[in-house]
This record gives sequence, C-alpha cells and structure tokens, in this order.
Amino acid sequence: MIPIVTLLTDFGHVDPFVGVMKAVILTRAPQARLIDLTHDVAPQNILQGAFALAAAVPYCPSNTVHLAVVDPGVGSPRNAVVVQTHRARYVAPDNGLLTLALEVDAPLAAWRLTRSEFFLPDVSATFHGRDVFAPVAAHLACGRAAADMGEEVDVASLVRLPVPAPSTDGAKVRAAILYVDRFGNLITNLLKRRFPGVRGARLDGVDVPLATCYQDVAPGGALCLWGSSGYLEISVSMGSAAEALHLSAGAAVDVLLEGD
Amino acid sequence: MIPIVTLLTDFGHVDPFVGVMKAVILTRAPQARLIDLTHDVAPQNILQGAFALAAAVPYCPSNTVHLAVVDPGVGSPRNAVVVQTHRARYVAPDNGLLTLALEVDAPLAAWRLTRSEFFLPDVSATFHGRDVFAPVAAHLACGRAAADMGEEVDVASLVRLPVPAPSTDGAKVRAAILYVDRFGNLITNLLKRRFPGVRGARLDGVDVPLATCYQDVAPGGALCLWGSSGYLEISVSMGSAAEALHLSAGAAVDVLLEGD
Amino acid sequence: MIPIVTLLTDFGHVDPFVGVMKAVILTRAPQARLIDLTHDVAPQNILQGAFALAAAVPYCPSNTVHLAVVDPGVGSPRNAVVVQTHRARYVAPDNGLLTLALEVDAPLAAWRLTRSEFFLPDVSATFHGRDVFAPVAAHLACGRAAADMGEEVDVASLVRLPVPAPSTDGAKVRAAILYVDRFGNLITNLLKRRFPGVRGARLDGVDVPLATCYQDVAPGGALCLWGSSGYLEISVSMGSAAEALHLSAGAAVDVLLEGD
Repeated sequence: MIPIVTLLTDFGHVDPFVGVMKAVILTRAPQARLIDLTHDVAPQNILQGAFALAAAVPYCPSNTVHLAVVDPGVGSPRNAVVVQTHRARYVAPDNGLLTLALEVDAPLAAWRLTRSEFFLPDVSATFHGRDVFAPVAAHLACGRAAADMGEEVDVASLVRLPVPAPSTDGAKVRAAILYVDRFGNLITNLLKRRFPGVRGARLDGVDVPLATCYQDVAPGGALCLWGSSGYLEISVSMGSAAEALHLSAGAAVDVLLEGD
Repeated sequence: MIPIVTLLTDFGHVDPFVGVMKAVILTRAPQARLIDLTHDVAPQNILQGAFALAAAVPYCPSNTVHLAVVDPGVGSPRNAVVVQTHRARYVAPDNGLLTLALEVDAPLAAWRLTRSEFFLPDVSATFHGRDVFAPVAAHLACGRAAADMGEEVDVASLVRLPVPAPSTDGAKVRAAILYVDRFGNLITNLLKRRFPGVRGARLDGVDVPLATCYQDVAPGGALCLWGSSGYLEISVSMGSAAEALHLSAGAAVDVLLEGD
Repeated sequence: MIPIVTLLTDFGHVDPFVGVMKAVILTRAPQARLIDLTHDVAPQNILQGAFALAAAVPYCPSNTVHLAVVDPGVGSPRNAVVVQTHRARYVAPDNGLLTLALEVDAPLAAWRLTRSEFFLPDVSATFHGRDVFAPVAAHLACGRAAADMGEEVDVASLVRLPVPAPSTDGAKVRAAILYVDRFGNLITNLLKRRFPGVRGARLDGVDVPLATCYQDVAPGGALCLWGSSGYLEISVSMGSAAEALHLSAGAAVDVLLEGD
C-alpha cells in the first residue's frame, strides 16, 4: 500500500519551507505520496487551518498521515503530538489545530512527540515542521506505530479550540460566517445535519432563499446553499457574495427555518 | 505505464479544494502521477483556463488524463464530458474550457458523464471537481475506457468559446492581447504558423521590432518575440511590458508584416 | 533508488510554466519524484533564488537533481550548466543562482549544456526551463552522467553573485537584512558559525536580546533568534518584525557581541 501524507501549513509559497519539509519526508519515506491541502492558512490562524483540515479528512484514504503545522508556539513548551484515529494519524502541535478534524474522525489515542531519535539531529527553535513534524510523519508513513513516538496522553486532554456555535431562539437561528472562500462564498457555522430545516437567510431585511445550485437565481442574485462540506453558505450567482453583500468572517447572519 | 493526471482549476491555493480532489484521485488511482498545470485561473475565466491547458497539452505524455475545472455552471444542467483524442483524455465541464486544447489535439469522440457509479456517492451542488470530475479522472487513469463513462455525444456539438481572431487588411494585421504573464509579457492572438511574416508591431506610432531574444534590445527597450507557445508576444527587456506600455488583456495592437 | 528532482523558479503559479516543465520531466523520467522548493522568487531576483535553494540543499537526499531557473538572460549567450557536487547535481543558468548552494555543497566539476540531443527538438528563445533545463534534469534523473551533457568548464569560472557580507569593527558588527519571510521575520547575513558570540541587536537605540524561542519575550516584543538556516533573524513575538520595526531587505542592522 502506498502511504499518503497530507501537508497543511501557514508557510505560504514564497519561502522554501514546504519544499524542505517534503525533502525531509521523501529522504526517509521515498514511497510516500504527498498531497498539499493548503499552505496559505493566514499566518498563525489556527481556526482557519482546522477548518481546511476537517474538510479534507473524509476524502483521504484510510491510514493517511496528516501533517499539520500552524504553530505560533513553536519552540515553547507546547506539546507536539501524534493522534491515532480510526481513519488516520495526525501529526501536529497540540494547540487546537486538530479540533474539527477530530470531530469528524474521532481520536482513539494520542502521544506526545518525546522520542528525539525520530527527529532531525539538530532541532531548531523556529522550524519544527522540518525538524520534528516532517521526520515523525515520515516514520509513520514507513510503518512505524504512533505509540512508538512518545508517551501517551489522554485524548480528552488535547487542546480544543472554541468554535463559534449558532445560537437558536425557537425558530430563529443566529449563525456566524466562519470564512470566505476564493469565490467570495460566505461559509457559516450551520451544519446541515444539525439544522436540516433551513429555508434561507435574512440579510438587511431581505430574504435570501435556499437554492440547490447557483443557477437557481439570476446572475447577481443572492442565495443560500448547502456547501460541499455540509455548512450553509451564502453566495451570489456568477459573483462574489463577500463583495456584493459587504460581509466577511465573523459577521452574524440570521437564518430562517421552515415554519418561521 | 504510470498514468499522468494533470489538474487545472480556478480553485486557488487558499482553500483545500485542490488537495481534496487529489485525495479523491489517489484513493482510487494510487499509482497516478499528478501534475498541477495551474489553479490560479481567475475565478470563472474559462478563456484563461483554455489557454493554459492548450499550452501544456503538447508536452504531456500520451495517454495523459487532463482534468480541467473552471465551472461557473456547476450544479446546473450543463454537461460534464470526457473527450478522447489521439494523445489524451479530457475530463471537464462542457463549457468551452477545452476549445483551444482540442485545436492542438483533435477530438475523436466524446461522452457525457452520466454513469453515476463512477462519481462519489453523494454529489454536492457546488463541488463537482471533487464529486464527479476527480473520481472519473481516477477511473480513466486506472484503465477504464472513456466510452464507459456515459452516453456518446457528437464532438461537433461540444461547446466552443469564441476566441478573438486577428483581423487582416492586406499587409496590416490588427491583433489582440489575450493575456499578460507573470513577467508582464503581452501575449497576442497571432500564431506564428499563420503569420510567419511578422516584422514587428506599432505602438503609439513607434515601431517595436521582432527580435529573437530579450537581449537583442537594451534593458528597458520594447521588442516582439515569438513566444514559447507560438504566439507573438510584446516584451520589455529586463522589465514588464504591461507596466511600461500600459497595456492589458483585451487591448488591440497593430502588427507589421514584411513588405508593409 | 527513486530519483528526486527539485524545482525552483520565478515562474509563479498563475501561468502553466511549472506544470509544463513537470510534464517534460515526467515524460522522460516517469519514476522521478518532484519537489517544488519555490516558484515565487520575485521575477529575475537571482539572489532570492540563491538563498531559497541553499536553504533546501542540506535536507535533500544524496543524488538529488536540483533544477533552478531564474533566468533573465534566457535566449542570450549566457551559459547553461550542470554542476556535480558530492551531494547532488545542479541544472541552472550560469548567472550566480548557484552561488550559495555551492557554498554549502562544494562543486566537483561543471559542464556547459551543449549537447542539444538532450534538449527538446525545438528550443524557444524564451522558455529554456521547458526546452533545455527540464529535459536535461530528466536525463540526469534517469541515470545519465553530468559529464555527458556538454563540455567541461572550470568550476572556478562559474558566475558568483556578490553577497553582502557583514562588516566588523572590533566587537561591533554591521549586518544587513537579506530578506523577509512570510511571517515578517528579518533574516540577516550573519551566520552563527562565523559569529557565535552574538548577544543581540540594537535598533533605534534599543537593545533587542538574543532569545532561544519566540515565547521568550512577551507578545509584541522584539527578539533576535538563530534561524532555521543558521542566520541571525530579528522577529517580533506573535507578530511581524517587518511591520513593527519598519525594516525590509537591504536595511542595515547593528549587532552586539558578547563583551560589547
């Protein structure tokens, strides 16, 4: 079986950081297949990284190694961990970056990365992606057990991010925009499996209907859609909802339920 | 033989969309080699995507699967197709994105993607790249015939984009700038094989000579060159023609022929 | 053994240039593993490319082929070369791009790329990355000897970039900022192995201490660190030093030595 290693960082594409991590991995796991999830997480934005990782997890083959590094605490005593789940193994700083992935892929066990024989010989203070996380991911991809990587920690003790939750008041729901994608779609924190009865949103007193595809409304018109990760999105057909509606991450949105 | 799958989208690098597509492909075709052509096509700019794809097609090995998704009509009744050519197979929405690739690599047959057993089990309204195109591309990379993917359609019925053509008036040619590359080079719609006798361009009354390399003129000087895809380009040595000449995509340019 | 080919260019991600180079390589060396170091070197900024390449070289497996193209002289009589070192082979224009890599990985021999049977049949004036460098790298990845690629040249004759050096005056050192990374860290030209006794920097009359990790100072505070490539860096904890200190590449910095 060909081991898959996904990479998610906030390292961007200008500096050679990601390429160096890949060199470290392929030196130790030449057969690994590498998939970039994204390296354009805004610097140190752990929540954004958590969402991107969770969106990809269900589509990766079982036994994938997910290497995720958004790590403002690099070099401090924050823990680095490997988490074993039913589907995958995750290598990351223990700072909440795995919060949402572990909601869709429940953790079985976790270990602190304490066995430095799996690191590069010289661990820098600023680039654990290269010196700690990449070589550990490579060893996992080569078949090493997660339990070999260090001392076990309780999965309940893993750091979890506070994720903004929708507030409900009878048939009314107050949602929040979690992020804006490249196309200007506004992704809210409303999951279809929790709020199946959504019929639309109300923006500045105007009702925006729930549609099944962008073409259900005329170009330039606003609509709600269940997005590809299961969250309610607000879009503008053939345009950018973020620009047209002047909304961005963090904004509140009133969502309408059937019977409302 | 190792199957090659190229990917071209307007999904950008911030969201994990492309990584998710790759996970879908490698789950089903673990041996596939993936080549990113570009994911920075301007959102929904089908013509830009068509040019980038056509520039790459001649350099890919035979039997390559080209997966191209610039798809403003996603979720609407627009067709999704696989096109078989002598060199390759193309998986894309039928919206003109293949127009220029099929000019350099003539289509033999085409099929609508109607066999949902080759899709992901749940097809979303907004991410057919993940749910339809990626799994179909993976099946093709694994050796499945294009004809298995759905019902045949006439290749003459495939949507073609209107591409701006140069207008000729005797020895005068009116060309258009199709796009501007990273270096500020202005790529026109004039193909060398159709207009071999070009001797330069005239911009604001000034003649810009045809040169054979950037160094033929002094730094800062303008020149014309036959670019690497066979189109006439207007460049500035050691600089950006787009900035120096204040020209951008869509602008008209007078081209001079020998004897003119 | 699986051959590794790294790619470093200033081609960016919008145009399909890099994808086309990869297609050329994989057509000729289907087993090669490709690692992108960066393609976002500022257009024609040879020094920036030289730093990125040198940062990655120590982490690549032996026998790696490094393909580096930042090439403002493309099409002119500048040489294209392959350089053999103990660790690797480098394929690049002879314009100084290899200067810093060859400081950490000393050259054994070099050859001009003169054997056109290893190029694509039609060599364009503007895209030697595709037509010359990529096919040569592929042949090297397939096991061809560097010496087969053309006529030998003296390694002492290879073009070297002038790299700004720190100036010392007793216990005082005047350093320069070489570049700014994605996180706003200011990377200086001071190497730890040459100046082990650094105790900090002085900026606008304020001492900035040498720390061992970002968390050694309060959020928003400035610090010096030995960076992951061995250079002294000036950072701001949980922030951007470039923004907070209004410094950018080229700026001079006073560095303090122990006993100073």
